[in-house]
Amino acid sequence: MSIAMPLIDEAAASAEVKAVFDDIKQTRDTDYINNFWRMLANDPATLKRVWGGLKEVMAPGALDPLTKEMIYLAVSITNGCAYCSHSHGAAAKGKGMTQEMFAELMAIVGMANQTNKLADGYRVPVDERFQNLF
Amino acid sequence: MSIAMPLIDEAAASAEVKAVFDDIKQTRDTDYINNFWRMLANDPATLKRVWGGLKEVMAPGALDPLTKEMIYLAVSITNGCAYCSHSHGAAAKGKGMTQEMFAELMAIVGMANQTNKLADGYRVPVDERFQNLF
Amino acid sequence: MSIAMPLIDEAAASAEVKAVFDDIKQTRDTDYINNFWRMLANDPATLKRVWGGLKEVMAPGALDPLTKEMIYLAVSITNGCAYCSHSHGAAAKGKGMTQEMFAELMAIVGMANQTNKLADGYRVPVDERFQNLF
Amino acid sequence: MSIAMPLIDEAAASAEVKAVFDDIKQTRDTDYINNFWRMLANDPATLKRVWGGLKEVMAPGALDPLTKEMIYLAVSITNGCAYCSHSHGAAAKGKGMTQEMFAELMAIVGMANQTNKLADGYRVPVDERFQNLF
Amino acid sequence: MSIAMPLIDEAAASAEVKAVFDDIKQTRDTDYINNFWRMLANDPATLKRVWGGLKEVMAPGALDPLTKEMIYLAVSITNGCAYCSHSHGAAAKGKGMTQEMFAELMAIVGMANQTNKLADGYRVPVDERFQNLF
Amino acid sequence: MSIAMPLIDEAAASAEVKAVFDDIKQTRDTDYINNFWRMLANDPATLKRVWGGLKEVMAPGALDPLTKEMIYLAVSITNGCAYCSHSHGAAAKGKGMTQEMFAELMAIVGMANQTNKLADGYRVPVDERFQNLF
Repeated sequence: MSIAMPLIDEAAASAEVKAVFDDIKQTRDTDYINNFWRMLANDPATLKRVWGGLKEVMAPGALDPLTKEMIYLAVSITNGCAYCSHSHGAAAKGKGMTQEMFAELMAIVGMANQTNKLADGYRVPVDERFQNLF
Repeated sequence: MSIAMPLIDEAAASAEVKAVFDDIKQTRDTDYINNFWRMLANDPATLKRVWGGLKEVMAPGALDPLTKEMIYLAVSITNGCAYCSHSHGAAAKGKGMTQEMFAELMAIVGMANQTNKLADGYRVPVDERFQNLF
Repeated sequence: MSIAMPLIDEAAASAEVKAVFDDIKQTRDTDYINNFWRMLANDPATLKRVWGGLKEVMAPGALDPLTKEMIYLAVSITNGCAYCSHSHGAAAKGKGMTQEMFAELMAIVGMANQTNKLADGYRVPVDERFQNLF
Repeated sequence: MSIAMPLIDEAAASAEVKAVFDDIKQTRDTDYINNFWRMLANDPATLKRVWGGLKEVMAPGALDPLTKEMIYLAVSITNGCAYCSHSHGAAAKGKGMTQEMFAELMAIVGMANQTNKLADGYRVPVDERFQNLF
Repeated sequence: MSIAMPLIDEAAASAEVKAVFDDIKQTRDTDYINNFWRMLANDPATLKRVWGGLKEVMAPGALDPLTKEMIYLAVSITNGCAYCSHSHGAAAKGKGMTQEMFAELMAIVGMANQTNKLADGYRVPVDERFQNLF
Repeated sequence: MSIAMPLIDEAAASAEVKAVFDDIKQTRDTDYINNFWRMLANDPATLKRVWGGLKEVMAPGALDPLTKEMIYLAVSITNGCAYCSHSHGAAAKGKGMTQEMFAELMAIVGMANQTNKLADGYRVPVDERFQNLF
């Protein structure tokens, strides 16, 4: 299981899995199915639920798709998820993230991780005005 | 120390600390100094270094200030830093983040934390094309 | 040191280390000593303390051994520990975890990581009834 | 927003939110809606998606409901999510978790967090047999 | 349970718990038992195991007691554990940590959390010489 | 970008980058520039800021350089940063950390990660005396 779990090929996919694969291809206008989805295909219910959720969350809304991808990428780097940093980095690049933008994102991720621990370790009390504002 | 460390008042600040406080007020066009800076003022070298770094990192660049704040906020929430979520949430609001934008940010943070663990736990191999692209 | 620290072979083990290795083999009814224990053998006090603790904690009790292994595995995946996910995944499999059970475990790990951040980020106040109940 | 976001009362809920609340009450055979759902109700799409996912993931399957709750609880404690530890602790208690079982769960969570770091810090190489087995 | 679990008073302690409490008092040359131990006393096996391990790990060795406490504190702050930061902060203070030393520790914790994410996010390849050296 | 971002050679470095590289070599009395700095050189502002901060934080002060490196290393291991564990492990070794000291550090890191989760999961209330003391 796990590593022994195969990446599911489209050719070998059940009808349920194939329907998700087709939706991925259509939504992303591509013929390529990431390894992430091919792995989740071993559990069709999770594949369907996670893809459906991701599609909904990453659709254009009050935030544009590039901003959404960069937020996703920043969280993935903070969590140390190598796969997600690769895949969402590539996605962000495809949506227009330049090297300069990535470098600024990285600088923010680094700075936030630093100040998060300073605020925690010094137990800085939340300002009254922040509690009202946010 | 720590909780016993006082929040430093401007009135009681050394010249070195006061110079940083003045720069904060000028840069942010405000008269208010956050508790975070007032706490760091117990260690003037750290206050100066962290403020200088934050000012540089958060200045407008390839990314606009609101996008930067939202990335900062998403990382802070992922790390569970209550102070930083409050302060950067308030800052993002001040730069134009609406409730709808915050809700989308939260949905992405939740989704990323979910898929980060799915990719890790299933040990999904990185797609060759991502290694080349990003 | 560390990577330069060798995996200690049984043949080369001190009497103190050998006693732990023998207990591992007897307790687990196996001839195989995991790399984890062979590495800790570089610090016999830690080897003895950690093995003794693990043996005690994982012994059958109010929870059965398989449930215990799956809890261990879920924590290890959440922490992104590749070695522990491999070793406790294998152990869980040895105690009866099927692919279907692993898939359900993974779905829970993903979901929990998502809702953990939603509850934190939205600062949901703890329900009074939970404070009384738990 | 956030703290300023109100907990949505059933009486004030939109039809979309009310439909989810009703499903929660029916699925859990209760009249009580947790603060978590009342907060997510500020973003009906997320409320619906997360509730739907949770309902699916936590339904009886290859793993029984109590085992599922304890895995959820162990992950939530590892992540330091106070709200989720309260709510899933209460849920586990409701499904039969005794104090003795909770104490064993806690012992495993502690032990796993310890060995996760020992394996990482010593960079223990994954045993070949684990790579084949799991 | 949990919050409902009482802090165990010495007067109400079983013989097994009392033996551990006595060892804590003797080892630390104090009459005071921390809440941490009084809580673990609800699970005497865990109380005994964790206290025994802590006593062994924190005893003077190649590292002096103050250095050990500061390492413990830095890890606890990184993990965001408020209780442990309080208790090990107090312990470090008791062993000679000054405000200046604490401020330097905090600066390192902040810096390490920043560079950890920069190294991860940029996927910096490990230098060959580090692999040989460490 | 990222993996596609090259490690910057000194020969190819801009004057701004070269100035930092020269300071690194002089401060550390070495001819070797770590991959970390060669990677950050893709973003000269971050290179300069992070190096400047690290140099300041790691300079001898109330804490000696070896203690500082070991704190840095303990945090990096807790965060699971492989690169930083290698580089700061090597640095600590260069400043006098022996195998015995490293083994004690690891034992503390493991123990702290265990008790951090026990204190969190059992929601141990902070002792009044710790709040006053620290």
